[in-house]
Amino acid sequence: MAQLTPSASFSFKVCIKGPNRPGMLAGVVEAIAKNSGSLGDIRLIEQNLQESVRELDVDAASAEHAGEIEQAIREVADVEVLSADDRTFAMHVGGKITVDSRISVGNQADLAMAYTPGVGRICRAIAEHPEEVYRLTVKQNMVAIVTDGSAVLGLGNLGPEAALPVMEGKALLFKEFGGVDAFPICLATQDTNEIVKTVKYLAPVFGGVNLEDIAAPRCFEIERRLREETDIPIFHDDQHGTAIVVLAALTNALRVVEKSMAEVRIVMNGAGAAGIAIAKLLQAAGAMQIIICDSKGIVSVSRSDLNDAKQAWAVKESGQLADAMNHSDVFIGVSAPGVVTPEMVKSMAAKPIVFAMANPVPEIQPELVLDDVAVIATGRSDYPNQINNVLAFPGLFRGALDCRASTLTQKMYLGAAEAIASLVAADELTREHIVPSAFDKRVAPAVAAAVQAAARDEGIARC
Amino acid sequence: MAQLTPSASFSFKVCIKGPNRPGMLAGVVEAIAKNSGSLGDIRLIEQNLQESVRELDVDAASAEHAGEIEQAIREVADVEVLSADDRTFAMHVGGKITVDSRISVGNQADLAMAYTPGVGRICRAIAEHPEEVYRLTVKQNMVAIVTDGSAVLGLGNLGPEAALPVMEGKALLFKEFGGVDAFPICLATQDTNEIVKTVKYLAPVFGGVNLEDIAAPRCFEIERRLREETDIPIFHDDQHGTAIVVLAALTNALRVVEKSMAEVRIVMNGAGAAGIAIAKLLQAAGAMQIIICDSKGIVSVSRSDLNDAKQAWAVKESGQLADAMNHSDVFIGVSAPGVVTPEMVKSMAAKPIVFAMANPVPEIQPELVLDDVAVIATGRSDYPNQINNVLAFPGLFRGALDCRASTLTQKMYLGAAEAIASLVAADELTREHIVPSAFDKRVAPAVAAAVQAAARDEGIARC
Repeated sequence: MAQLTPSASFSFKVCIKGPNRPGMLAGVVEAIAKNSGSLGDIRLIEQNLQESVRELDVDAASAEHAGEIEQAIREVADVEVLSADDRTFAMHVGGKITVDSRISVGNQADLAMAYTPGVGRICRAIAEHPEEVYRLTVKQNMVAIVTDGSAVLGLGNLGPEAALPVMEGKALLFKEFGGVDAFPICLATQDTNEIVKTVKYLAPVFGGVNLEDIAAPRCFEIERRLREETDIPIFHDDQHGTAIVVLAALTNALRVVEKSMAEVRIVMNGAGAAGIAIAKLLQAAGAMQIIICDSKGIVSVSRSDLNDAKQAWAVKESGQLADAMNHSDVFIGVSAPGVVTPEMVKSMAAKPIVFAMANPVPEIQPELVLDDVAVIATGRSDYPNQINNVLAFPGLFRGALDCRASTLTQKMYLGAAEAIASLVAADELTREHIVPSAFDKRVAPAVAAAVQAAARDEGIARC
Repeated sequence: MAQLTPSASFSFKVCIKGPNRPGMLAGVVEAIAKNSGSLGDIRLIEQNLQESVRELDVDAASAEHAGEIEQAIREVADVEVLSADDRTFAMHVGGKITVDSRISVGNQADLAMAYTPGVGRICRAIAEHPEEVYRLTVKQNMVAIVTDGSAVLGLGNLGPEAALPVMEGKALLFKEFGGVDAFPICLATQDTNEIVKTVKYLAPVFGGVNLEDIAAPRCFEIERRLREETDIPIFHDDQHGTAIVVLAALTNALRVVEKSMAEVRIVMNGAGAAGIAIAKLLQAAGAMQIIICDSKGIVSVSRSDLNDAKQAWAVKESGQLADAMNHSDVFIGVSAPGVVTPEMVKSMAAKPIVFAMANPVPEIQPELVLDDVAVIATGRSDYPNQINNVLAFPGLFRGALDCRASTLTQKMYLGAAEAIASLVAADELTREHIVPSAFDKRVAPAVAAAVQAAARDEGIARC
């Protein structure tokens, strides 16, 4: 496995004091560089004729690496380290979200309207006209981010408490990128029935539900049942969010290589929640040849170990991943680090497209095959073409909430993917730029508009 | 029943345009006064030589009354009504709370720390050291406001959607007065078992639970079981919040009349959740003679229709409320409008104390007995001595969260009540000022400190 590059996720903030003379800072910068740290912002905190105090952000490749760099700084002559803090941990102290008031309650009259007795009139209005709950409460803009902590990121079954930081992070992305209020619900049960019941009990407050980090195959049944038994949008981001962004990226990658969705042979490595959802959406977008592989090789009719979800995708051919990739046009991995070799990539058809999305270490390091692929994308922010769900879910819910969609459909997902893809103009499209940036402010509104249009087309908009 | 006074809860905002000359506004003000409307703020929106546009806040006594006043304004010569909006409804459009980010995510590095991959380090830290969930997530400051919508204010079983505006209001009071993040959980079930299970499933995200507007006797079992089966503070505000503020008010009222808790005979009218909780807390504070009445009269050993909660309070004497009140020192009502007559008050002992807290219409209108009582208090903001739960719950949870109390105890409630009472200094204490204002900024910190001190005394503080 290649050595990891320094990243913000292992960064630390170090506050140093030293004599105010030329060369002092240079010594520190040199110590960081010699130890392969990556320097970010430097802030001058205070300074007088004798001394200066500076704060430096330093990226490292691991917590140990950060410790080594810090030690090297401490050893620079005349420099005193006043403090050194892990930036990621510091950012999380106290949690990442807050519940605030949208109105001011500065006097007795405000209180009499926002709370008793005035609020009683609002309660009565909703009791008499149930649809008023959308107008007069937070329901219109509130999404529950629901997990059971059984599949937290790529880390496994860490439980509901350990999942909470991810859900808080998701909530702030919902707000930042989509203007959607979202609240983390981390359930202390991993029983499918209990999860379904609980979400239904919670539904009065929420205009939509984002299922997150729930292990397969449980996640499929939970999503299916909630779709059937509630009248609000239910979205499993690990499936459909990923599928939307992959479709957007593949749409543009195919433009780069001038191939069509209908003609390409696609190898989908990973037959879990994400893999199956991607395959379904690509099929809905016109893909005709999709070979799914799991850890045992091609999902083939010749195998007897397939669950229902996989059986629906079984193909006549059989073999290993390497066999599947031979002469394929597209490889999409949502599987495991390093399972693809340069030889496998070289065996692909001309102008191959490789999406290696295992996190944080991809199926193949891009550096190893840069000259052999036409387009390569990963889930990482430190390579070009990041396949990032944040391109999809904030706009998707923005659109669904704005038209009060009763459910979500493949057509809405297709619209979202096309909206994302279309934001990369023809003259911007290159092998290293197939998706817009996560910070492109146009993305969420474009996705929202497309989702809303699809909902209206399908007659599921309720306002 | 006396005619209701105009209040903010039935107020409207009217925007008027008229010729910019002396007397125009006077005509409108006169129309409002003639129709018994109460004028609040007047804002000049724009003005030129010919015309002026003004916005007026007008309190009315009912929605119909508001309509009449509006009509009268429309009939003022030369005045055009541009808009007229119900202020309470306008305040509720879009809901009253919002979920915001506590940190900024303006670039890729922020994203890599707050979300993947950096957040994975936080998840792992919590999985390895479960108590870290308090430090690194919102749990440390987050309270669930849980209802099943079965007893919404005094309005009855309106269901979870109609209860949501109350819970949102409560959430904003938690934030405004206690700096506590709180989130409304309105459950679509009224089954005791299901409610208990659901709250336990939700517990990973929350540092405490405020039960609200759940009907008796279900609320007792839910509270008891959650206290036994979780390790976070569980608080039923309708019971204990009311009890704390009543005790605070009674403590000071007794100072006004120079009687002691141990010597007074107290009639507690209302044997529901609030009544029983008040009786218990007064007893813990030293009250020796408490006669509880329900709609059938004195809760007496001679009755055969008493549930368990009432039986524990049954006394030897029997009779109606009037019999109980005869020669009593204190009347506390959490019952129904108008059940107390002036004669009943006149039959009380010297210097009687009357807390008539039925909402919005008290057991007896204060005007009818002002000369016959030493102290009178109500639940209303338009009379002196408002018994308002907002004096208790924000500071109570602030204190419990700050010391990570594992539960709540009578001793914490007694401390909270004493803290509230003590904020009315001896030289401020009068028959019309027995409790601090809801807007007194000292209240929540004082309550929090007392609660925290009690928790430490009892060894239930965890940090």
